[in-house]
Amino acid sequence: MRILITGAAGMVGRKLIARLIKDGTLNGKPITSIDAVDVVAAEWPASTISFHAQVGDLAVPAFVDGLAGLKPDVVFHLAGIVSGEAEANFDLGYRVNLDGTRMLFEAIRRAKLSPRIVFTSSIAVFGAPFPAVIPDDFHLTPLTSYGTQKMMSEALLADYTRKGIFDGIGIRLPTICVRPGKPNKAASGFFSNIIREPLAGLEAVLPVPRDVVHTFASPRAAVGFLLHAAGIDGAQVGPRRNLTMPGVGVSVQDQLDALRRVAGDRPLSLIKEVPDETIWSIVKGWPTRFETRRSNALGFEAEKNFDAIIRAHIEDELGGKLQH
Amino acid sequence: MRILITGAAGMVGRKLIARLIKDGTLNGKPITSIDAVDVVAAEWPASTISFHAQVGDLAVPAFVDGLAGLKPDVVFHLAGIVSGEAEANFDLGYRVNLDGTRMLFEAIRRAKLSPRIVFTSSIAVFGAPFPAVIPDDFHLTPLTSYGTQKMMSEALLADYTRKGIFDGIGIRLPTICVRPGKPNKAASGFFSNIIREPLAGLEAVLPVPRDVVHTFASPRAAVGFLLHAAGIDGAQVGPRRNLTMPGVGVSVQDQLDALRRVAGDRPLSLIKEVPDETIWSIVKGWPTRFETRRSNALGFEAEKNFDAIIRAHIEDELGGKLQH
Repeated sequence: MRILITGAAGMVGRKLIARLIKDGTLNGKPITSIDAVDVVAAEWPASTISFHAQVGDLAVPAFVDGLAGLKPDVVFHLAGIVSGEAEANFDLGYRVNLDGTRMLFEAIRRAKLSPRIVFTSSIAVFGAPFPAVIPDDFHLTPLTSYGTQKMMSEALLADYTRKGIFDGIGIRLPTICVRPGKPNKAASGFFSNIIREPLAGLEAVLPVPRDVVHTFASPRAAVGFLLHAAGIDGAQVGPRRNLTMPGVGVSVQDQLDALRRVAGDRPLSLIKEVPDETIWSIVKGWPTRFETRRSNALGFEAEKNFDAIIRAHIEDELGGKLQH
Repeated sequence: MRILITGAAGMVGRKLIARLIKDGTLNGKPITSIDAVDVVAAEWPASTISFHAQVGDLAVPAFVDGLAGLKPDVVFHLAGIVSGEAEANFDLGYRVNLDGTRMLFEAIRRAKLSPRIVFTSSIAVFGAPFPAVIPDDFHLTPLTSYGTQKMMSEALLADYTRKGIFDGIGIRLPTICVRPGKPNKAASGFFSNIIREPLAGLEAVLPVPRDVVHTFASPRAAVGFLLHAAGIDGAQVGPRRNLTMPGVGVSVQDQLDALRRVAGDRPLSLIKEVPDETIWSIVKGWPTRFETRRSNALGFEAEKNFDAIIRAHIEDELGGKLQH
């Protein structure tokens, strides 16, 4: 089982790689090699599996032809410019998120491979206004260039799969929470900050009302989606290859209640409510809950509640115990 | 008012041009020039308006930069490889239907114009299975490369519009009926053949059961959609720039009943029912009816019934009178 991972140095890519090295198998078969690609160099964990890191740009045909030449059995295509950057730099977003994806698909076509390709799409393919719960057959009307590029890549993935060029599964990830690391400036950052920082004994700012509802999955669940998508039977999925992943749809108040249940009163005292109109105006346009009937039926699993998301963070990032 | 038309030599393009020359105005303003572009040379009607025909390929940047240099106020982007050809020639379909569209949009961006662009999309952006009536918020899961390319072009149109690069309206045309000319090999051809040929005293073959339901608009209505889209207020449309056009949703039996009402019994006797499993298997996967609430509210109008579609054909193609 030869595995190629693009965007390998990102948060999800690193966690996927750690899991693959730990498991040693994918879809029940021994992993013989992992090729990890990103535009930036990174440090990688020690591995007994053949492991190669490559630094390069997917929108350069000679580079992607080299990747296809590795004859991967499974490709995890995670690479992408994030939403804020794709919005600020129109050309870069299209070059990486659309052209990079298309070049990769074309290189695989030229090499006459037919790997399983797992592509991480996003709920940004949807655009407001939304129903309270978004059904699987809701239309795609993105309101960002990032969402547009993900939608176009999804369309390519489905068409290349239909033509038998490869066997693709697109998974639309909900907001990943709790994101490890430092607070960042993403408008969605506070959803993680208000859990991660207080658990580490640090203050966090809540910039929106507590009745804001949003859908989450843990980094661990995201890796689980990727592994499940790698092994799922394409015939069972049928021609609609892009699936909205399950998640935990909760209000900020629900997040805080879960934090209290898991970690007691003290972390709550570290959260300062400082309304921020700019963030609130962005968050207002985001979807709240998803129906995800298809991904549920296909066996994709997120956490059952937000308590489990917090516990996954404590186990995976804090060594399994509360530090305060 | 300077007008640029791509795919000008196609059936809809020619009818649009004839109408623009006849009207002499668009959106209430005098037309000062029409530039008609196609990959094939064509004969054009005499015009008192400045009229230029250009033969060229939209996927060639220097050519599209030249088109943008004409500084059109309104672009009708009708060019495209048809469904069957895009399915048979994967690279050609993507090159023309996706890359050609993107190159045109990019040339307009480089020229810093912000024209109204009216783009003809298709109901092929939808893919079976369908509800009996497809709502405006139904998802896009095309089952052809053509439909995929139209969906991707729609996504670009909406994103470029959102970014203020131009002001686009995408219109998803239903099946155009009655198509003038000779019977062709398109799987949808019989819907027109069974009306046009008997009205001309010729035999026609009906290859599917009479209870097949499909949605139609006349060539005249299609031109009406284009003109309405050219003048519509973008603010009223909002960010969801791609609209399913209205049409007449009827069964084949309804078509035949309308033919009898309009032209009597004799044309009916010229229709031979010869079931064709290949055509039937394709047609089974097609959508039947559309809700089109948005396009109705925005003032797009198709015929009210199939009788009116037949009468439009008799008026526009047969000089207003039955020949037999």
